[in-house]
Amino acid sequence: MQRSKAAMPPPESADEIEARFYEAMQQGDIEKLMAVWSDDEDICCIHPGSPRLVGAAAIRASFEAMFSVRAIDARPEQVRRLQTLDCAVHSVLEHVRVTTSDGPQSAYVVATNVYVKGALGWRLVAHHASPATAREATDGLPAAPLLH
Amino acid sequence: MQRSKAAMPPPESADEIEARFYEAMQQGDIEKLMAVWSDDEDICCIHPGSPRLVGAAAIRASFEAMFSVRAIDARPEQVRRLQTLDCAVHSVLEHVRVTTSDGPQSAYVVATNVYVKGALGWRLVAHHASPATAREATDGLPAAPLLH
Repeated sequence: MQRSKAAMPPPESADEIEARFYEAMQQGDIEKLMAVWSDDEDICCIHPGSPRLVGAAAIRASFEAMFSVRAIDARPEQVRRLQTLDCAVHSVLEHVRVTTSDGPQSAYVVATNVYVKGALGWRLVAHHASPATAREATDGLPAAPLLH
Repeated sequence: MQRSKAAMPPPESADEIEARFYEAMQQGDIEKLMAVWSDDEDICCIHPGSPRLVGAAAIRASFEAMFSVRAIDARPEQVRRLQTLDCAVHSVLEHVRVTTSDGPQSAYVVATNVYVKGALGWRLVAHHASPATAREATDGLPAAPLLH
């Protein structure tokens, strides 16, 4: 069933739209995921190690391809926030849990998420993700010793 | 010689502050480079394949380490812009020229640069860079055939 962007109340904060973004990934819900994005034609998405995608059609196709395999169990950690009147920049460490033939594994991704506030509330305009380093992956584990 | 942030006129556009950012890299000028950044304590910088850096001290140290080897001949290409009243999100393909023992080489980096407008004009608040894919590198070369 198609879900329109108007079906949910406008998000009142960047944190709220960010929560919807990761919930949509965890649920593999393409309509919910696309409702997070701004209608601006220059929205940008870079998945780890992948080419830059510009515009809703390319971004939708990339998430549809991912969700056709499985939902993405990515959870934001260590969020750093920077906000103006109508823009919020969040730097997050995504903790991604995947199940492989060797059992459950954790991977870490560093992402920059930029949200803009418009007439319909907050919306995502840019998502740039790249693999985290081994040090960040170690720091990101709850049971890891405090390295710095 | 230390150069204060007030030594240059406030940048009147995100394009102007972006031009200063890349000029500072090309000139290996650490004071000019740090003057581009906002004073916000949560400014973020991610160099390709490197850990997330938060705050001016960590960012300064990373660029000083790079400039101690050489200036960075990085030039922004294929810029996609998205702007609100006080925030600008630029997605750029950085063309980096390096000279190796095999002669001059080109590398490509995808970067998301976020600028915020404050009392002192536009300033950089986030720079997230990751290696471009082979396809983007090919597309980025002026003499390359049009692949799509």
